[in-house]
Amino acid sequence: MKVALVQNHPIFGMKEKNIDELEKLIRSGSADLYILPEMAYTGYQLKNADELKTIADTVDSPCISRFTKLSEELNAGIILGFPELSADGKIYNSSIFITPEGGRHVYRKTHLFYKEKLFFAPGNTGFDVYEWRGVKIGLAICFDWYFSESFRTLALKGADIIAHCSNLVMPYCQTVDFARAIENRTYIATVNRIGTEERDGEKLTFTGGSVLVSPKGEYLIKAPVESTGIFISEINTAFSRNKSINDLNDVMNDRRPFFYFK
Amino acid sequence: MKVALVQNHPIFGMKEKNIDELEKLIRSGSADLYILPEMAYTGYQLKNADELKTIADTVDSPCISRFTKLSEELNAGIILGFPELSADGKIYNSSIFITPEGGRHVYRKTHLFYKEKLFFAPGNTGFDVYEWRGVKIGLAICFDWYFSESFRTLALKGADIIAHCSNLVMPYCQTVDFARAIENRTYIATVNRIGTEERDGEKLTFTGGSVLVSPKGEYLIKAPVESTGIFISEINTAFSRNKSINDLNDVMNDRRPFFYFK
Repeated sequence: MKVALVQNHPIFGMKEKNIDELEKLIRSGSADLYILPEMAYTGYQLKNADELKTIADTVDSPCISRFTKLSEELNAGIILGFPELSADGKIYNSSIFITPEGGRHVYRKTHLFYKEKLFFAPGNTGFDVYEWRGVKIGLAICFDWYFSESFRTLALKGADIIAHCSNLVMPYCQTVDFARAIENRTYIATVNRIGTEERDGEKLTFTGGSVLVSPKGEYLIKAPVESTGIFISEINTAFSRNKSINDLNDVMNDRRPFFYFK
Repeated sequence: MKVALVQNHPIFGMKEKNIDELEKLIRSGSADLYILPEMAYTGYQLKNADELKTIADTVDSPCISRFTKLSEELNAGIILGFPELSADGKIYNSSIFITPEGGRHVYRKTHLFYKEKLFFAPGNTGFDVYEWRGVKIGLAICFDWYFSESFRTLALKGADIIAHCSNLVMPYCQTVDFARAIENRTYIATVNRIGTEERDGEKLTFTGGSVLVSPKGEYLIKAPVESTGIFISEINTAFSRNKSINDLNDVMNDRRPFFYFK
């Protein structure tokens, strides 16, 4: 499977324009699965909860429909983050995995970062893995990386690759992904945005540098820090399903959960 | 508390000589707590289980007594790895935390690496933390690092520092310690040996490079790869007990175990 990391530069609130940019980036490279950042077409830095209401979308909204149409047209999967207005009236920091066959899998961010806690409802889906075209794809969002249990849970559910939609402002995650990849022997795709948002005097700079790390800890993709683009690499489930590191150690079977504190 | 990482070069089977070297290294620097490698005075690479019987020691053996006497004389704690002959006749890959007040805390390696599985009994103690002179000290051994749950369990039990006695042959652990330190906000002391052992044509080279990483991911110590020595740094529980990374996120309280697969 060919996986594309789509690193963009959204402008806060300019949803249609941002989707235009994403569509252009997606069309510029051929892949089976396109992974986009967290809050991919809305921008990130909210002033308050009221503002969040003005940019949130339902799963069947016009904005999301643009991606489902693109998925069908390109016969490819698309995973992107967006602020999800759910049927219960709550707004989650979500990602959606869209397949051309009609799959609409939603993940709601488990670990909210900083002021997201003031605006979003904490995710209630937990971590799930979806098999598509022979590959098991797990969903996670940004700050989830900090908690080893997030990717571990997805790996234990069989993830070959973790689609990690991000809006990172710290530079640590791309380094820690090495640990996350080798400890789980899964592919980790951390897809980040670039650019700076300054709102009400508070400034956030996103660190770009999207990465795809192999189950052996090789950085198959290291995107630039300050420019947008689409970065494509092949993944192979033969590597992510082989949990042996030598003739006697299998890093999943060797776990001893009886001794672990949950 | 001043912590010393003691990086040595044992010769297989030369127990008294190896303890002489360790004692010399320990006496060459002043600290409150000395952490030594896994299998610190026996050497590592066993030909078979019978050979293990010839080098294993009980907790009150003459070899261990040399360390307990040194601990009393220096009024300092000592943590070291050794092959432990237990009362039940089994031999564990253990570490012992010796205090001058008479503490004799034994940890038995939970995750055995490669051929250790053929020779040692799997550890049955689980991961524990011992408070001494105001600092909570957790014990782990070498390959335990690979499993994020090991250090996580110790951190959840309150560890300020994880004394990680090692005989590393791969170079990954010292890199992954960055992740282990920041995700748990604890000090990680990975203490490794140097040198090469060649037995029956099988050659193992130990990677040295002992590290002490702070709860913020700073490498307070990075020992050389190819020479022995004692490396000392101060640790401060104010840092390891502060789990906040900003005004709204506390990396322990933010965990959501309901969604974690154990």
